[in-house]
Amino acid sequence: MKLMRLGAVGEERPVVRTDDGRTLDAASVTADFDSRFFADGGVARLREALEAGTLPETDPSGLRIGAPVARPGKVVCIGLNYRDHAAETGAAIPARPVVFMKDPGTVVGPEDEVLIPRGSVKTDWEVELAVVIGSRARYLQSAEEAYAAVAGYAISNDVSEREFQLEYSGQWDLGKSCETFNPLGPWLVTPDEVGDPQALGLRLSVNGRSRQDGSAKDMIFDVAHIIQYLSQYMVLEPGDVINTGTPAGVALGLPDNPYLRAGDTVELSIDRLGRQRQTFAQA
Amino acid sequence: MKLMRLGAVGEERPVVRTDDGRTLDAASVTADFDSRFFADGGVARLREALEAGTLPETDPSGLRIGAPVARPGKVVCIGLNYRDHAAETGAAIPARPVVFMKDPGTVVGPEDEVLIPRGSVKTDWEVELAVVIGSRARYLQSAEEAYAAVAGYAISNDVSEREFQLEYSGQWDLGKSCETFNPLGPWLVTPDEVGDPQALGLRLSVNGRSRQDGSAKDMIFDVAHIIQYLSQYMVLEPGDVINTGTPAGVALGLPDNPYLRAGDTVELSIDRLGRQRQTFAQA
Repeated sequence: MKLMRLGAVGEERPVVRTDDGRTLDAASVTADFDSRFFADGGVARLREALEAGTLPETDPSGLRIGAPVARPGKVVCIGLNYRDHAAETGAAIPARPVVFMKDPGTVVGPEDEVLIPRGSVKTDWEVELAVVIGSRARYLQSAEEAYAAVAGYAISNDVSEREFQLEYSGQWDLGKSCETFNPLGPWLVTPDEVGDPQALGLRLSVNGRSRQDGSAKDMIFDVAHIIQYLSQYMVLEPGDVINTGTPAGVALGLPDNPYLRAGDTVELSIDRLGRQRQTFAQA
Repeated sequence: MKLMRLGAVGEERPVVRTDDGRTLDAASVTADFDSRFFADGGVARLREALEAGTLPETDPSGLRIGAPVARPGKVVCIGLNYRDHAAETGAAIPARPVVFMKDPGTVVGPEDEVLIPRGSVKTDWEVELAVVIGSRARYLQSAEEAYAAVAGYAISNDVSEREFQLEYSGQWDLGKSCETFNPLGPWLVTPDEVGDPQALGLRLSVNGRSRQDGSAKDMIFDVAHIIQYLSQYMVLEPGDVINTGTPAGVALGLPDNPYLRAGDTVELSIDRLGRQRQTFAQA
């Protein structure tokens, strides 16, 4: 099942996208795809309604695509989680997941304009597999419990300002939390349609030129490990987002450091999760 | 004006605490002290109602004290922001604010039990002056604009697990985001009652023994600088919380590293902002 939110910023409405390309209004099941929806078994109710044929078709034309989950409670990120990306940034292979956070207010739609911060000369891209949490996760004891806590998967662009991230203090959050720095979507795809998340290929291009082409099989810490690990240290709540790291090919790691400029267009795709396209603009 | 929230977790109701010790029900003005309340000029409306005498008295006896703001959108923290604390941890005086984040789900009431994470042997305390944002702040240009964005001040305990924070990866968020790790309150005190935030004294004791006794005048980066600085890199939204750093005296910096154990009681106070008292328990 593919969950989407359509409409202007702050006025998004929940819909289901069917495999034959129809858009079905989910308003009879929930007002939004938010923390409460996931916590209260909303995904199962939505599936029942879909299978019962009670969701009316709606016309998506002209509507903005929002992030597929309403304002997450937190966005947790795993750094340096692909061997080739750790190598290109000059970092050692981490012995434990490197955990940092983005301001959850950075989450925007997959086609929204992304703003290059004032004073920035090192705005960079990162295609990532995002995990959306579906049930409260605390001190999980197995990979099975970890997978059971997943509501679904989506594409995330973990946009990063490398000067703010790496040159101002040892802490990365500042360069990860700039306005509009987390395009998410277009869909939240439920696990049954995704299968093994480690089998997914991830790709990103800038102005039509391929820059990242990796596979989640090359993660140092896989999705189940990340969720179980995080749950030992923090409580993951329904609707929370985890960005699971990026493969090689970011501007930071390329010889000529081709950081993003106003007018650049970035396209991202992940197998089974659709594609994103953003144009960058000056804040 | 002192804003409080009273009631069980998730059922807190907004009240005003008067200087003569009465508790006034604020339900006629707002359902909660949340982001929308601050954004929509709620503080001014509340003050009008208080001055007009239209807020009915209510009986607070037996009610839990919640955090004075409903679930913040984010909790931003400034590390190593007092010279003596930077010195005790062996860190250099930072040239720029060190910015990291806590899971906003860690915010609890000022008297709630705080949980020592499973496997933790280095749970530590940090009394901090918390700033609550009252209006959207983005690329602020002056200290005046920074102060204008403040809804009020509160006591914060930026509870920290030093092994998770400092020994697992270079990023601190993991050791700052454990369940219940941010007691906040008892009140949100509006700026007119606080005066110069840099004049406030901060104190913390453990089991009755004084451990921290500092002054906000010793901050490396003052409140206005922090807000203006952060606004160059992220958007501060109404209801967001900023923990502005801690003075010397944490367990990490003491010769015998007296980290917290189940049963320990921590008391915090800041001039004009009241006091907190938490008992620690095993998660």
